[in-house]
Amino acid sequence: MIKINENYLMLQSGYLFPEISRRVRVFGAKNPDAKVIKLGIGDVTEPLAPAIIEAMHHAVDRMGNRDEFKGYGPEQGYDFLIEAVIANDYASRGVNIENTEVFVSDGSKCDTGNFQEIFGIDNVIAVTDPVYPVYVDTNVMAGRTIGPDGKGWYKGIVYMPCTPDNNFVPQLPKEKVDLIYLCFPNNPTGAVATKEQLEKWVDYAKENKAVILFDAAYEAFISDNVIPHSIYEVEGAKQVAVEFRSFSKTAGFTGLRCAFTVVPKELKAWTSDGEAVEVNPIWHRRHCTKFNGASYISQAAAAAVYTEQGKKQVRKIIELYMSNAAIIVGTLKDIGYEVYGGINAPYVWLKTPSKMTSWQFFDYLLERANVVCTPGSGFGAAGEGFVRLSAFGNPANIAEAMERFKKL
Amino acid sequence: MIKINENYLMLQSGYLFPEISRRVRVFGAKNPDAKVIKLGIGDVTEPLAPAIIEAMHHAVDRMGNRDEFKGYGPEQGYDFLIEAVIANDYASRGVNIENTEVFVSDGSKCDTGNFQEIFGIDNVIAVTDPVYPVYVDTNVMAGRTIGPDGKGWYKGIVYMPCTPDNNFVPQLPKEKVDLIYLCFPNNPTGAVATKEQLEKWVDYAKENKAVILFDAAYEAFISDNVIPHSIYEVEGAKQVAVEFRSFSKTAGFTGLRCAFTVVPKELKAWTSDGEAVEVNPIWHRRHCTKFNGASYISQAAAAAVYTEQGKKQVRKIIELYMSNAAIIVGTLKDIGYEVYGGINAPYVWLKTPSKMTSWQFFDYLLERANVVCTPGSGFGAAGEGFVRLSAFGNPANIAEAMERFKKL
Repeated sequence: MIKINENYLMLQSGYLFPEISRRVRVFGAKNPDAKVIKLGIGDVTEPLAPAIIEAMHHAVDRMGNRDEFKGYGPEQGYDFLIEAVIANDYASRGVNIENTEVFVSDGSKCDTGNFQEIFGIDNVIAVTDPVYPVYVDTNVMAGRTIGPDGKGWYKGIVYMPCTPDNNFVPQLPKEKVDLIYLCFPNNPTGAVATKEQLEKWVDYAKENKAVILFDAAYEAFISDNVIPHSIYEVEGAKQVAVEFRSFSKTAGFTGLRCAFTVVPKELKAWTSDGEAVEVNPIWHRRHCTKFNGASYISQAAAAAVYTEQGKKQVRKIIELYMSNAAIIVGTLKDIGYEVYGGINAPYVWLKTPSKMTSWQFFDYLLERANVVCTPGSGFGAAGEGFVRLSAFGNPANIAEAMERFKKL
Repeated sequence: MIKINENYLMLQSGYLFPEISRRVRVFGAKNPDAKVIKLGIGDVTEPLAPAIIEAMHHAVDRMGNRDEFKGYGPEQGYDFLIEAVIANDYASRGVNIENTEVFVSDGSKCDTGNFQEIFGIDNVIAVTDPVYPVYVDTNVMAGRTIGPDGKGWYKGIVYMPCTPDNNFVPQLPKEKVDLIYLCFPNNPTGAVATKEQLEKWVDYAKENKAVILFDAAYEAFISDNVIPHSIYEVEGAKQVAVEFRSFSKTAGFTGLRCAFTVVPKELKAWTSDGEAVEVNPIWHRRHCTKFNGASYISQAAAAAVYTEQGKKQVRKIIELYMSNAAIIVGTLKDIGYEVYGGINAPYVWLKTPSKMTSWQFFDYLLERANVVCTPGSGFGAAGEGFVRLSAFGNPANIAEAMERFKKL
């Protein structure tokens, strides 16, 4: 008799965004004339930059030409993309990364979700609270928790609260933990970590033989020069950290699918007998066995992000989003809301007024202003009483949404 | 201290195709003038059909246009593709499939590799021998085996030998098994299963509350009208089977990445308490949590496969490959080789002469004829003494390869 993986039955409610979509659909059905503005799901809205479009047309033509047709590519990605990544994202910041340390994929959701799989089931996981739900849910599925505790957490996971008191950068855990998920610039709070703060984490990981999974999907939105874009800007981080990067938000690839993960050769994990094992070849084996490479078209598009024209055009789009963020932060502060983020990240983290819960404010905002936000409680118990507003959207919509906030 | 997933350390040698590439590279370095013909890895060689190229150019243009730009799509795929799949692949054969039963993905390697994850770790897995290595390796990684047995198998997996004696269609296992991987038309042997043979499997699964994972990635190559293209052509199969389909071989998408998996609503698995659980919502949860949709460009390309022009053009390419297969089978039989497959599948399964092992014949063929094949032993112990030849290639290369076989 086929048995289900019962860990899946421990998962709490649906994944956050489908639930938001459902409520928006229900509202739309009852209010067909309402012009709903979506500042909820963090999806880009600007069309792709011309240099990327041009590169894709060329790539498509190659696929129709016998001599240039591309079948299976290398599972870990084409060298033309890996080399552009290394030169532009790492070498330019003094970080030395080798080709075989970069794994191109179809998205950071997949990579951050799958990476835990190559570690033993008895590792203790630490996540921030609030947190991108994928980190938690994939560990629940894998069996690293012993069920929900009834208060919004899973037993077996170490949660590190991120609140206004600690500037949304967590303290080191008191417990010993083995696998730590960090995301800076942060989704959902928009917070960033300084080099000094990251150094503390790297030191902790070295002392405790822990591994840091560092999600840097939003690094392109950093405006403050002293904030590191990569955890590898911290000396010694290659011994203890994996880094996830994505073209989704950076260059508008949410519909194209391309990302990459850096797994340094120095990174080690251990067997139960205490023998050190290199993590890079283990991830390589996983990647080659369960994945067949990202689309050639998407990889050609990603390489165009690093061309001279591509860089300029992509930068302009990021500036548009960050100008939206500045307007959101400025307006909401002016009318008396308590807001965080929005300076080095495309997300604004808003404290709900009048002690409303996150979902109460979600419904209130949808009903009264026809604006969709993301309930902070969907990211974890410490997100209760907050909502996330996304700066992705066209400026006219953002302005209109702010007018509606003023009238609330 | 971070512990590695020690199941990965049980994996035997590298994944098959990287090892082939390595040997070919070594040979090429020593023999830079040799014109090597690759009949090894099953990768398509014909450029994409014009209707697909045209659809991709349109899709690319939409991504550059504000009003038509596509960000995140539905994780399970766009309805325009799902509806084309259902109409053309299922309704046309009298099989009723609903939209929510189809999950579009970036490849069948991922889907066949990932699907085991939603089932309990204590299920007994049955695979054919020889077998597509992904089925086995992903179960080793998950911890469903207790290590290699030293004879080419893993302890804990039930292997079902496929040999000339059973026409490469396995007998029902004597043991009770819970999860059965079947692939027809078969990779690597090129064998097909009749409706009667599939009925036996469906009956077995119903009686034993087992699930069949049916890999139909090569269904488009079936030339014999009585052979089912889908396991759902067998009555009641929707209660017990998941079906994997791919555009990779059908339409040349190995570099584009698009596939789909059908998970019927009737399909159930059980908790350890004997409670029935629907598999479809569990896979949906997995798909939405760990995957963010296939590239919009690839989905637009896949939809073009089902247009009138697309169908004609794709059919012509398949006929070209199958004419290659017929030439391989005909030539090798003429010169006295024992060969199988190649009629309803793009693979020919060749018995090595003079009791050579698979790798001995691989090296012999590479050295003496500069032709690359795939060692049958790489697909399992019962593949020892066979090699797989792929019919993907241009006809001139196939003819040249056959000339070299004649001179051996």
